Amino acid sequence: MTVKKSGGLADVVAGQTSISTVGKAGMGLTYRGYSIEDLAANAVFEETAYLLNYGKLPTLPELQAYKIKLRKLRKLPAGLLHILEQLPAAAHPMDVLRTGVSALGTFEPESSATDHHAVTDRLLACSASMLLYWHHYHSQGIRVDTESDCDSIAEHFLQLLHGHSPSKLHEKALDVSLTLYAEHEFNASTFAARVTASTLSDAYSSVTTGIGTLRGNLHGGANEAAMALIEAFPNPAKAEAAVRHMLQEKKLIMGFGHRVYAVRDPRSDIIKRWSKKLSDDAQDWVLYDVSERIEQIMRKEKQLFPNLDFYSASAYRLLGIPTSLFTPIFVISRISGWMAHLVEQRSHNRLIRPNADYIGPETASWLPIDHRS
Amino acid sequence: MTVKKSGGLADVVAGQTSISTVGKAGMGLTYRGYSIEDLAANAVFEETAYLLNYGKLPTLPELQAYKIKLRKLRKLPAGLLHILEQLPAAAHPMDVLRTGVSALGTFEPESSATDHHAVTDRLLACSASMLLYWHHYHSQGIRVDTESDCDSIAEHFLQLLHGHSPSKLHEKALDVSLTLYAEHEFNASTFAARVTASTLSDAYSSVTTGIGTLRGNLHGGANEAAMALIEAFPNPAKAEAAVRHMLQEKKLIMGFGHRVYAVRDPRSDIIKRWSKKLSDDAQDWVLYDVSERIEQIMRKEKQLFPNLDFYSASAYRLLGIPTSLFTPIFVISRISGWMAHLVEQRSHNRLIRPNADYIGPETASWLPIDHRS
Ligand SMILES: CC(C)(COP(=O)(O)OP(=O)(O)OC[C@H]1O[C@@H](n2cnc3c(N)ncnc32)[C@H](O)[C@@H]1OP(=O)(O)O)[C@@H](O)C(=O)NCCC(=O)NCCS
Ligand SMILES: CC(C)(COP(=O)(O)OP(=O)(O)OC[C@H]1O[C@@H](n2cnc3c(N)ncnc32)[C@H](O)[C@@H]1OP(=O)(O)O)[C@@H](O)C(=O)NCCC(=O)NCCS
Repeated sequence: MTVKKSGGLADVVAGQTSISTVGKAGMGLTYRGYSIEDLAANAVFEETAYLLNYGKLPTLPELQAYKIKLRKLRKLPAGLLHILEQLPAAAHPMDVLRTGVSALGTFEPESSATDHHAVTDRLLACSASMLLYWHHYHSQGIRVDTESDCDSIAEHFLQLLHGHSPSKLHEKALDVSLTLYAEHEFNASTFAARVTASTLSDAYSSVTTGIGTLRGNLHGGANEAAMALIEAFPNPAKAEAAVRHMLQEKKLIMGFGHRVYAVRDPRSDIIKRWSKKLSDDAQDWVLYDVSERIEQIMRKEKQLFPNLDFYSASAYRLLGIPTSLFTPIFVISRISGWMAHLVEQRSHNRLIRPNADYIGPETASWLPIDHRS
Repeated sequence: MTVKKSGGLADVVAGQTSISTVGKAGMGLTYRGYSIEDLAANAVFEETAYLLNYGKLPTLPELQAYKIKLRKLRKLPAGLLHILEQLPAAAHPMDVLRTGVSALGTFEPESSATDHHAVTDRLLACSASMLLYWHHYHSQGIRVDTESDCDSIAEHFLQLLHGHSPSKLHEKALDVSLTLYAEHEFNASTFAARVTASTLSDAYSSVTTGIGTLRGNLHGGANEAAMALIEAFPNPAKAEAAVRHMLQEKKLIMGFGHRVYAVRDPRSDIIKRWSKKLSDDAQDWVLYDVSERIEQIMRKEKQLFPNLDFYSASAYRLLGIPTSLFTPIFVISRISGWMAHLVEQRSHNRLIRPNADYIGPETASWLPIDHRS
């Protein structure tokens, strides 16, 4: 492993959390104490979101009631539909979600009367609606009905995107991916959302901060960047040559490395198996084989391992999802983690306001405008 | 001074900056080395914004060219006007600005072709237009023309708000306030905007984060909260009794205290003098006298001093500005600081991603759904 640099608050403890662990010795990745492997194998995404936000796994009646509640919250206010129609066709979908969530905060503001769970549930349920209403309006000129009887968020997303029911395999693959993306401790977007919450701002502001922060290529945007890389190659040999060349030029390979994990990202193994399953189902292994070759080279040359974003790229492509919707799916899932952190931050709040080390000019005496050059 | 608590990254150095100092021994508050006292006495806001973003004070021709450039950027895209019309009349203006800036990022995205200065200039020039177009559309049902020949942002704001030219005194008072609010090192909104920038996200995302974070009552929202307090009292005696009672009940008095300053906020003395001037001009000293009495009690009882937000409240009211537009004015000004920090962050970027101290449940074995309660 290459030596870690200083800065970027690396290894600085910024606060306490009881929501998840990332790479904690003996624990790996857990949500509220449950391992990511168990959650991905056994829980549906709604169950995971419930665990994160209510602090316990739901009973069967609780889970059923929760899914029904979310199902009823898929419809968007008319004003928001008009706004989505105004946003340009060429906009990045992350900017659409950032704007849509911010606008929803004006239509349905958080108040002392509405508890934070209401905002969480609403955003979990309707963010796919926002995204895909805008998508279809601009790509096909149609105003889709975002209400549906689909049982899960994964099914709702795929059905709304493709206009037909997904296969059970496809629905499950996306569902697992949502669980993997749901929560990850003090990652940059969650931490930024907590800073926003720490001024006692509202929940929509925190989530808007989260979306804007997730958008960058060093964070959630890495899944889109990884896809651009992987699909540029027709076969593993071409990929190997190109990636070796990129490494020589000291370029970053998106979807590799992590601030906290030192040897592996436990989520990667899980999504990799799903990427393989989806390739087998499609009888098309090009993306998977190219991805594996890139993984081998990165291990050999840089001792770097794939993070969750790397195999998510091929998996999402095999689900027929356009690249520009990859990071927005991350948003739909991560809303559950951001909101759990907002509640935790509020429960023991102190303003998050660090110091800076000043390295600028010494104090200068005033320079009248006609003395300047 | 009451003893400081731990947490909230208090006293943690999160990075380096050469933009400003806050309470540095022997320097006080400086922007690029110039003291806030000199800037408030001698510079106009556009000169201050230029200093922050271009790193030097402009010459007279540079300042004139800069003002003309900003003047030409006041008009909003038609799509954004439609969006502002859709946002409800009852929305908080901070949510309107958060949504408007986010939406502008879809109409005029940052690209490698447009440099960051273009985004800074555009947002400095048109944020008052966004705010007041929405304000007049919903309060009076009119679509105002946001273009104008006004020389300064302060004049443009007051003319657009009131529909007539402000007096020289009013223009200057708002102009000085914009300089005072422009920049303040690693305050919560700037720090959050830097976290957003550190993932290599775009400038609109950073500014949107800044707005959402500034909105909270512990940060920019304090000027609105201070106004609500001050104007509740018809005279100093009533204010004194009420504030003493609030302190007994351990309530926060908004507009007092600061994370970094220990004995005084140098900006408060300056805005206090302007609040006095505006009171003299209006021959109305009620707000000022009430404010002074609250200041005295806070010093005596809590050893706490007013921060910039406290006397900004009475000053803004004397300028005829509705309370809900106070924090948005802070935004119009602080865009200059946020953007300077975005550029600084990008120039030596490393992802800002701290660690967390896990205090949650131990690892639990999986609990099948029919075993739960
Ligand atoms: C995730 C990431 C931002 C962590 O950043 P970090 O903790 O600041 O990483 P470091 O700067 O300590 O990395 C150490 C070294 O490994 C290199 N490195 C890290 N990730 C790399 C990658 N994906 N490709 C190539 N080199 C990489 C760095 O360039 C650095 O080398 P240097 O010292 O020669 O400059 C970083 O690994 C990265 O940029 N990955 C690609 C983007 C990505 O996949 N993000 C999603 C994360 S879930
Ligand atoms: C600015 C502020 C958030 C700084 O927070 P901080 O550094 O975390 O402050 P601390 O928690 O260390 O404050 C120390 C003590 O002073 C008290 N205190 C601080 N500001 C206070 C205020 N405005 N009114 C009453 N008490 C105050 C705190 O309650 C705390 O008392 P405690 O130990 O009994 O709980 C805080 O002073 C505040 O909330 N001020 C009011 C909001 C405001 O004006 N914000 C604008 C800042 S420019």
